[in-house]
Amino acid sequence: MAGNKYEEIAAAAIQLFEQKGYHATSVQDIADAVGLQKGSLYHYIASKEELLLKITHQAISGFVRRLEEIIDTDLPVEERFRQGIRTHMQYITQYLSMSTVLLREAFSLGEPHNEVIRDLTDRYLNLWTQIINEGVAAGVFYVKDSRIAALTILGSCNWVYRWFKEEGKYTAEEIADQMADLFLNGLKKGRT
Amino acid sequence: MAGNKYEEIAAAAIQLFEQKGYHATSVQDIADAVGLQKGSLYHYIASKEELLLKITHQAISGFVRRLEEIIDTDLPVEERFRQGIRTHMQYITQYLSMSTVLLREAFSLGEPHNEVIRDLTDRYLNLWTQIINEGVAAGVFYVKDSRIAALTILGSCNWVYRWFKEEGKYTAEEIADQMADLFLNGLKKGRT
Repeated sequence: MAGNKYEEIAAAAIQLFEQKGYHATSVQDIADAVGLQKGSLYHYIASKEELLLKITHQAISGFVRRLEEIIDTDLPVEERFRQGIRTHMQYITQYLSMSTVLLREAFSLGEPHNEVIRDLTDRYLNLWTQIINEGVAAGVFYVKDSRIAALTILGSCNWVYRWFKEEGKYTAEEIADQMADLFLNGLKKGRT
Repeated sequence: MAGNKYEEIAAAAIQLFEQKGYHATSVQDIADAVGLQKGSLYHYIASKEELLLKITHQAISGFVRRLEEIIDTDLPVEERFRQGIRTHMQYITQYLSMSTVLLREAFSLGEPHNEVIRDLTDRYLNLWTQIINEGVAAGVFYVKDSRIAALTILGSCNWVYRWFKEEGKYTAEEIADQMADLFLNGLKKGRT
């Protein structure tokens, strides 16, 4: 029961943090959204900041876990790269509000909370760097610096939270494939 | 005199909005930072929101103006593309705090202010789409959809506000060139 109520609170907080921003959302706003007194809300959450931590932790963990599963497959490196882009796009568009909170609001976390999210974000970047390094080792990709390439690619994939529209011209998968084409062609021919 | 004091207020607000976020920054915080009484601050600014509008307007206008200058040159399209990436990187890293406020905080503007910034942001996206379209028309670039390609490239270029470090391994120009290589190779070979 507590679990279900927590899920309801988190869902309401995600909507409020996305629309108004973390700082502009009060604990009272969240309580109102789920029909609880402010005092009762504290049975389920320790603080507004802990709620932001839990939301952003769930979001970044989802990105990491999905990419780890793809990396562990036996697919050729180009195919793992493409699947990685597809999975990122699927996840970010399916959980667009939660992703927005992660990508725009996590900076408001104080230490040591901020460090937890930063470490997981670094882990996600390292996984992308690893795929690119594997491609370089296999003689398929040519880049000057794998980490800069990973940051470049991840930037495009993350920025999607700003412009993706459910009712847009392309599905998330179609956009992922256009991005993957551009990046794979760039990585493959990128010998300078 | 009023102009100089306004500049000082804007600079203080940029620092505060970057560090704490727009909503977490009070008018009192800004007044304290420039050594004014809150009442006196209102001689220079109409409201905190108007200040956010002016800051974000200056930021996005700078991006637009610089890219327009490059587009108007007679350079080959590939070179204009590379110069566009370089100029974006120079500007975003030189004005990193102001860019952070633009890219992370502008959503807090109410209407019609938000629309002003959105229109200029669309104009910047349209300029990038135009360069790609010119490359396609010249038979140099191959893309499925120029606007998606422009959003992909712009996402990478904007995300830099999150990870660029002045003391990092590469200069802004070196990063710009690595990004431009990746994208130009991708655009040139991107026939699917």
